[in-house]
Amino acid sequence: MAETGSDLPVKRPRDDEQEINGSISMETESNYISSVIPGWFSEISPMWPGEAHSLKVEKILFEGKSDFQNVLVFQSSTYGKVLVLDGVIQLTERDECAYQEMITHLPLCSIPNPKKVLVIGGGDGGVLREVARHSSVEQIDICEIDKMVVDVSKQFFPEVAVGYEDPRVKLHIGDGVAFLKAVPAGTYDAIIVDSSDPIALCLFHSGPAQELFEKPFFDTVSKALRPGGVVSTQAESIWLHMHIIEDIVANCRQIFKGSVNYAWTTVPTYPRHILLIFLLLLSVVGVIGFMLCSTEGPSVDFKHPVNPIDADKNPSKSREPLKFYNSEIHTAAFCLPTFAKKVIDSK
Amino acid sequence: MAETGSDLPVKRPRDDEQEINGSISMETESNYISSVIPGWFSEISPMWPGEAHSLKVEKILFEGKSDFQNVLVFQSSTYGKVLVLDGVIQLTERDECAYQEMITHLPLCSIPNPKKVLVIGGGDGGVLREVARHSSVEQIDICEIDKMVVDVSKQFFPEVAVGYEDPRVKLHIGDGVAFLKAVPAGTYDAIIVDSSDPIALCLFHSGPAQELFEKPFFDTVSKALRPGGVVSTQAESIWLHMHIIEDIVANCRQIFKGSVNYAWTTVPTYPRHILLIFLLLLSVVGVIGFMLCSTEGPSVDFKHPVNPIDADKNPSKSREPLKFYNSEIHTAAFCLPTFAKKVIDSK
Repeated sequence: MAETGSDLPVKRPRDDEQEINGSISMETESNYISSVIPGWFSEISPMWPGEAHSLKVEKILFEGKSDFQNVLVFQSSTYGKVLVLDGVIQLTERDECAYQEMITHLPLCSIPNPKKVLVIGGGDGGVLREVARHSSVEQIDICEIDKMVVDVSKQFFPEVAVGYEDPRVKLHIGDGVAFLKAVPAGTYDAIIVDSSDPIALCLFHSGPAQELFEKPFFDTVSKALRPGGVVSTQAESIWLHMHIIEDIVANCRQIFKGSVNYAWTTVPTYPRHILLIFLLLLSVVGVIGFMLCSTEGPSVDFKHPVNPIDADKNPSKSREPLKFYNSEIHTAAFCLPTFAKKVIDSK
Repeated sequence: MAETGSDLPVKRPRDDEQEINGSISMETESNYISSVIPGWFSEISPMWPGEAHSLKVEKILFEGKSDFQNVLVFQSSTYGKVLVLDGVIQLTERDECAYQEMITHLPLCSIPNPKKVLVIGGGDGGVLREVARHSSVEQIDICEIDKMVVDVSKQFFPEVAVGYEDPRVKLHIGDGVAFLKAVPAGTYDAIIVDSSDPIALCLFHSGPAQELFEKPFFDTVSKALRPGGVVSTQAESIWLHMHIIEDIVANCRQIFKGSVNYAWTTVPTYPRHILLIFLLLLSVVGVIGFMLCSTEGPSVDFKHPVNPIDADKNPSKSREPLKFYNSEIHTAAFCLPTFAKKVIDSK
């Protein structure tokens, strides 16, 4: 299963120099429609009926089909380069920092001296880049199902894929659920589920989408964590589907006997989405949520980070300073609007 | 200038029962394009090149042209009824609570016993509804330039326009800047600039859009406030134009000698925008910002509210409880991402 690094060239752009003037449509097996209407890329899904978000396409840089999904990279006029998987925007150069920094530092700054970290998904490398800021970390495993995502990110998003350059990183290409099941119990201090594709796709093809947020998956994650270990995973937007969040929170409370918390932040172009259809919704409103949970053991108070990371200090001088995360925004992320607080506190 | 209430019937919908099947375009004098493409309403502006947000139109309920702007109300498939002024979404039934509650309670919960409050703009009545929750308030003046907005809101958005039913409210139809200039110095405890239209339009026709956030306007506001009085005004999204916010903050610091703060929150469909072209941008990302400033006098610490409002207690039993605002979210709104904090703290 393990495979370390990759230098294979990716498929070349279909037409590297030509501006998009015509109309290109793609209809994927996932039953939603993505289209580049004349000069524009639109996300329109039957799952978020009545709403669409469009970015102007300047140039298509790459189009390919992996064993798992359609992969598209285009140059937008205002958000820099954009990565699209099966028609869903995953990442834009302009705003990827918010998502990557928050999903990583919310868990890692909440425990003292994290040493072993696992990233499930996250093939673009952005979460690796953030994990690598923590000098206490000795081992960073990543399990990504789709090698094309890794290769495309290295070619077109070097400031994101820079995460792979850290010598502590070991890349495993394969199914995240299988990887987790094979891990000895209590291995990791922290697991970050950046499920842009591998697990989501795996589950999408094998069963109901909700599985990713149901007890069996959380149970597998829980067993791979040490006592008092932490997990961070995407968890929907409070603006759209509180009933889904309600279920996720209830499931987490049954599995994670340490603490269970919901946090949120804003991401203008929704740089990352789980590919599960119902979760595409989280993209619509520019707000993304995270579940932060810990296993039974040393107590973890996520709202009050014990392991601050200074915005201007980096273990690697080659990396940019933090753009989004700081200790104040960490704590603020757990303050919820009244309508969401009522539901989550009641679980 | 003063006019209290209004019972005039508004212009009837063009075709109250007919579904939208065709394509309708409007081009306004404000130089941006709004269009209802087949079944969809889109905001596309040359000022946010390369990005568009669309809501599916189920039915157009009202179309009219006031002395100031085009007014459109449509039924959307997922956000309830939507109010559009000159092509810009101002308010949706689904998410208006976040904006209305935050722009109102951030200032009013930061001072003890506010008694006299002025709302500039806010013709829909939502801010009035929120101000009226404060039992200490004795006088609520509102100056709105466009009577059609008031009438349309009363007809189509009764849960928002309910604000007008409070006996403390006095409606003045007229230009907000002129109104402010005529106010005796030191009149108000709080001024809320909900400039969806009146001042914005006024300034748009008389000079550069930026005037609304420049010193002469802030100076007029400052003089109308008592010592230690507070103002709350929209102030752009940190995701798009930090340089504009930078200028606004610098201007505020010169005028408001008490304290000057920037706060932010999320609003999926951007229920309210200033009509100034450059500020349309704030709508794009589902994030909206506010300037919270106080005049010289008793010190105001906006980050630690001294006048909490209980989510479940309302002076009027006819009103819904608060949906978004609470004391935690109040304080959290002032925690900024690192990139924004650096800029704002440097001013």
